[in-house]
Amino acid sequence: MRRRTTLAAKAAFSMGLDFGTNSARALLVNVRDGREIATAVAAYPSGTSGVLLDRQDPNLARQHPSDYAVALTRCVRAALRTAAKTRGFEPERVVGVGVDTTASTPLPVDEHCVPLGCKPVFKNDLNACAWLWKDHTSHAEAEQITELARRERPEYVAGCGGVYSSEWFWSKILHCTRVATKVARAADSWLELCDYIPALLTGCDEVSRAPRGVCAAGHKAMFRPGSGLPAADFLRRLHPGLGKLRARLYDHAHTSDQVAGELSSAWARKLGLPAGIPVAVGTIDAHAGAVGAGVRPGRLVKILGTSSCDMLVAPASAPVGEIPGLCGVVDGSILPGHYGIEAGQAAVGDIFNWFVTHFDGRRDAHERLTAEAQRLRPGVSGLVALDWNNGNRSVLADPRLTGLLVGQTLQTSRSEVYRALLEATAFGARVILERLELSGIRVREIVNCGGIAEKNPLLMQIYADVTGRPMKLARSAQTCALGAAIFGSVTAGPRRGGHASVERAQRAMCGLKSAVFKPRAPARRVYDELFAIYQRLHDAFGVSESSGPINTIMKDLIRLRERTRASS
Amino acid sequence: MRRRTTLAAKAAFSMGLDFGTNSARALLVNVRDGREIATAVAAYPSGTSGVLLDRQDPNLARQHPSDYAVALTRCVRAALRTAAKTRGFEPERVVGVGVDTTASTPLPVDEHCVPLGCKPVFKNDLNACAWLWKDHTSHAEAEQITELARRERPEYVAGCGGVYSSEWFWSKILHCTRVATKVARAADSWLELCDYIPALLTGCDEVSRAPRGVCAAGHKAMFRPGSGLPAADFLRRLHPGLGKLRARLYDHAHTSDQVAGELSSAWARKLGLPAGIPVAVGTIDAHAGAVGAGVRPGRLVKILGTSSCDMLVAPASAPVGEIPGLCGVVDGSILPGHYGIEAGQAAVGDIFNWFVTHFDGRRDAHERLTAEAQRLRPGVSGLVALDWNNGNRSVLADPRLTGLLVGQTLQTSRSEVYRALLEATAFGARVILERLELSGIRVREIVNCGGIAEKNPLLMQIYADVTGRPMKLARSAQTCALGAAIFGSVTAGPRRGGHASVERAQRAMCGLKSAVFKPRAPARRVYDELFAIYQRLHDAFGVSESSGPINTIMKDLIRLRERTRASS
Repeated sequence: MRRRTTLAAKAAFSMGLDFGTNSARALLVNVRDGREIATAVAAYPSGTSGVLLDRQDPNLARQHPSDYAVALTRCVRAALRTAAKTRGFEPERVVGVGVDTTASTPLPVDEHCVPLGCKPVFKNDLNACAWLWKDHTSHAEAEQITELARRERPEYVAGCGGVYSSEWFWSKILHCTRVATKVARAADSWLELCDYIPALLTGCDEVSRAPRGVCAAGHKAMFRPGSGLPAADFLRRLHPGLGKLRARLYDHAHTSDQVAGELSSAWARKLGLPAGIPVAVGTIDAHAGAVGAGVRPGRLVKILGTSSCDMLVAPASAPVGEIPGLCGVVDGSILPGHYGIEAGQAAVGDIFNWFVTHFDGRRDAHERLTAEAQRLRPGVSGLVALDWNNGNRSVLADPRLTGLLVGQTLQTSRSEVYRALLEATAFGARVILERLELSGIRVREIVNCGGIAEKNPLLMQIYADVTGRPMKLARSAQTCALGAAIFGSVTAGPRRGGHASVERAQRAMCGLKSAVFKPRAPARRVYDELFAIYQRLHDAFGVSESSGPINTIMKDLIRLRERTRASS
Repeated sequence: MRRRTTLAAKAAFSMGLDFGTNSARALLVNVRDGREIATAVAAYPSGTSGVLLDRQDPNLARQHPSDYAVALTRCVRAALRTAAKTRGFEPERVVGVGVDTTASTPLPVDEHCVPLGCKPVFKNDLNACAWLWKDHTSHAEAEQITELARRERPEYVAGCGGVYSSEWFWSKILHCTRVATKVARAADSWLELCDYIPALLTGCDEVSRAPRGVCAAGHKAMFRPGSGLPAADFLRRLHPGLGKLRARLYDHAHTSDQVAGELSSAWARKLGLPAGIPVAVGTIDAHAGAVGAGVRPGRLVKILGTSSCDMLVAPASAPVGEIPGLCGVVDGSILPGHYGIEAGQAAVGDIFNWFVTHFDGRRDAHERLTAEAQRLRPGVSGLVALDWNNGNRSVLADPRLTGLLVGQTLQTSRSEVYRALLEATAFGARVILERLELSGIRVREIVNCGGIAEKNPLLMQIYADVTGRPMKLARSAQTCALGAAIFGSVTAGPRRGGHASVERAQRAMCGLKSAVFKPRAPARRVYDELFAIYQRLHDAFGVSESSGPINTIMKDLIRLRERTRASS
């Protein structure tokens, strides 16, 4: 009798789905070794690069909920077409699907999980669409929530640095409740995008049964294990509608190694994947990115893009206390059984893009400025900047801070300012690192990923020189989608060719690039001095009235400039 | 018998000669009404736009002394050619010549007033040339002089804000004495450029007899009426050569209503002017500019160019005490019988040029940025800058201060920064104004002149709105040369068709443009708030350790930005 080869013995693949700001990505990964055999990106068809804007209100940023299904279908089918060329691949060998998305991007839905924005009655109603993470229309509501929580329920914001953001779940729903009564009333519930996609793929048509991920719940909706979402009386104080809504939301939230459901036959057909394979509980893109970069206790993962996300985990057995100024500490938000710790800088690549867009008109401006900045030695420009053009996320948790540049003369060049901005983000990164260690969380290793880490070796070298730590790079160029695929492989489990745990999947599927940026002692010494100046500015402008004197800062910079210019 | 018309009854003209950084200008003015009948400019032929540079040393800026005679001849002859077309003009009707130049621009000369740089033995020796005002090679010497004076003879620097500059007479000579022994030894004396030109024109061939102007002597060489130049023992402490040099310099200095000598026949022939007409004692360009703008007690003249000079006079009968932070208070330096009071900002136009050159690549960048900045209302950008890219002259008298910009976001545009820089110079101007008035010097009227005042109505309106004072403009577009011509007319005296005093000449020859920039109350209210923030930054970065808290500055700016954006 011919022995049947089991699926597990053959190659098995996992599909990671990553829903970004402008497009969706599908990544097919070999579960055994993490080899990425196919990837495809599909843009959201609506709005400006997928974002619905309002000319009257620069704070508004929405997405049309029908775009997700469209982009999802396109990118999965495209990835499968590419994968078909790989020997040994067949769609039947895809054993699980994982999902990550931007957050907080909540959508109002009806009781059948249908987004209100897809219903004819709400056609062209921006408030019925998905409220994209970077929508800031609800800044007044965020302040109100922060204030109420600080006064009455400080534990609600203790895990997010003491400030509830206008980018988050409750701020947006509260704002919608105020400005779009009809939408708010029609919304049976609100789903985070990372919960909507699994619900969609698994054909969930009862919103009360749609599994919610603990990652978005904990980091964005003040969900806490045990007590769940904020108390109804707290929400009622914000708006009676919120108090009523709470009862229709959820009491449980799940880690992403859990199965949200099985891929429905309808979506299996549409995508060309096997029906019935497990779809993992959705998670936030940065958190998936940390998983894809091999996050583990002691390994800090920095995801460097328009902003930065600094992700860490600590075993749940050794409880992490409050860490002042960090964005969030949520049990299970990154790895099951670990606290997920999130910090970040509100702008990194965005600052460089801002500068290039507004203060340089040349073609290939980034490349040219980088080449020029590369030739400058630390300290010679006599400049220091604060990287707060988009506020400060960690450790000041203050969105109403702004940028600063000091030290400019009549000779200061564009590339000097550009380099000062790169350095400013490195100083901001060092502040976070020092705060983590001060809180007793050891950082043994730093792994970078994201577009900027991939593309900007100068920035990586500056980060190494400023922090005095080697900067490593994740092997994958798409760690978020890889992290989602890892969750997909775990939901499949070893019997179907997947993995028994996230850690095991990471060991098999993650890796590092061989190149490492090592700190250079001479640069580091100069940067220690510049960082001391950065800290004085940081405290003088960001902290308290009793910060040290800053009247010598300009001269300290001039002395450093003269000294570094004089040395060869 | 046919009655001879006296020269006095006919039209009389005065020639003003203005030696700038890149060129010389000749201006022919009708003495009766100040009408400017001809003007001509001639560039200095050597170096880069007339300035000799050293690739190895960005601090070096010299001029070839032979350039002055060349440019002088060209511009005077060109002006006379133009004037020939004016009815009633004949060269014989030029009754006097006045001279102003940059300062401090000292030249080493031999005992016959011949510049060493013109001698074959010093051919190509930059140290034997004129040391242009903006040469900063002697910054170490300036610090040494400041230190010694503060310690032992504070009265020497009391009149110049407590800091002796690297741009001034003794710093430059001390540096030359150190680095170019041969030149220093060969120099029988040193002449300021404003003393060299009259010596040249009047054929003075004994340097010990060359009249020295009190303006450059008092403002640049620490000359004081009564005691003269700094004491020999003080100078010896700096360098033995300086002690010896003092004996060969001068004990007297003169106001510019005095005659330096008569135009020599040789120069009269060369220029096409009548021999024997009086040449006034030379003065500094800014001081002549104040005279040409009609300076008088209560009228502040602001000369706005690459930097600003704020010029005032106070009757010598009411002695002016020390005014901390002002550049200089010298008896007779502007108007005879009055204290000449000088303050200024180290960079005004230079800051705008810096920004445009380095952060804008467009054609007509100034015009475009101005048009865009014009459309912005005060406060809406949420930006404040310190105008210290070239240090701070008044009132901090600290060349080692640098620029600062605060409030930038990811939306901050180029034109917003440009406007913030315009506003920064206006805030700097207001600080000077308030310091003057605090010292008991009333400013009843402000008259602006110089290239920027002429060309930039937006800047003038901002100055009016920031200071709460009407901004007037001098009628002449070349007040420096006009001031020199006024001195020329006074040296001629009434008998030869000139004037009896500088005040009388000013009444006849100066005027204002009819357009006045008036402060607008709504803008002024916003600027009062921005100025309060500027002052906090000014004190925090420029003054003492005990300045007030600045940790609220970013938020104060955001609130102001939001408020001003919301108001129509």
